[in-house]
Amino acid sequence: MSSKRCAACKQLRRRCPSDCIFLPYFPPNNPQRFSFVHRIYGASNVGKLLQQVQEHQRADVADSLYYEAYCRIKSPVYGCVGIISILHQEIDRLERELAKVQAEISLVKGQTQIEGQLAQGKQVELSSSSFDLSTTTPWFY
Amino acid sequence: MSSKRCAACKQLRRRCPSDCIFLPYFPPNNPQRFSFVHRIYGASNVGKLLQQVQEHQRADVADSLYYEAYCRIKSPVYGCVGIISILHQEIDRLERELAKVQAEISLVKGQTQIEGQLAQGKQVELSSSSFDLSTTTPWFY
Repeated sequence: MSSKRCAACKQLRRRCPSDCIFLPYFPPNNPQRFSFVHRIYGASNVGKLLQQVQEHQRADVADSLYYEAYCRIKSPVYGCVGIISILHQEIDRLERELAKVQAEISLVKGQTQIEGQLAQGKQVELSSSSFDLSTTTPWFY
Repeated sequence: MSSKRCAACKQLRRRCPSDCIFLPYFPPNNPQRFSFVHRIYGASNVGKLLQQVQEHQRADVADSLYYEAYCRIKSPVYGCVGIISILHQEIDRLERELAKVQAEISLVKGQTQIEGQLAQGKQVELSSSSFDLSTTTPWFY
């Protein structure tokens, strides 16, 4: 057993071959990372899940499995599905808030338009009354 | 082996005891449900995850494990972490949209206030000018 064994081989007390499927994704300096996926999926299933994708995709597989395992350990009933549920609730809240603000902006725009028309009408009215006054003989004549 | 075996015991070709941990959550009429969690976690790990929570929580454990397994089979690289990522992007988009609409509403409200003040000023101006006209001798006198 070499001192360069990955976290998986170290924990499983076995020799770590140079082409070990876990070696690049479960370094020995982060034993918790492997420990978490091992507790939830089992080492053999993690190995299978890594092997079934292309090499350049394996780091993402290891990261996402670790994240899911972490969530399941912190929240044994819902795991990361609980997070999905919370995010859906947040999206619903934001969509309701957005709809409310959009309704408010339509209302304000509508009011502005009406007030603009009223103000224009008032100006026309005032202009007409000033015209009348100019053509009316003042009382002192 | 009884014909009332659950999907797990049926698939694992074993007797299904009356207190089988899988029986209430993996009915024989839905073999895919067990097949998915078995492929990702392995039957033994699913059993452990069910056993470590209280009985009333087990249906939620089975549902969330099935959902995660389903996501991992459909998306072998990211699993349901890909969904979490998409939901975060959607929240970011909604927050940006909300901030934009809130900025727009502040602008419209500000403009309405300014226009209101201008319209009030215009009315005062027009009223003053109409007073002047009334006290000025018309050109034809």
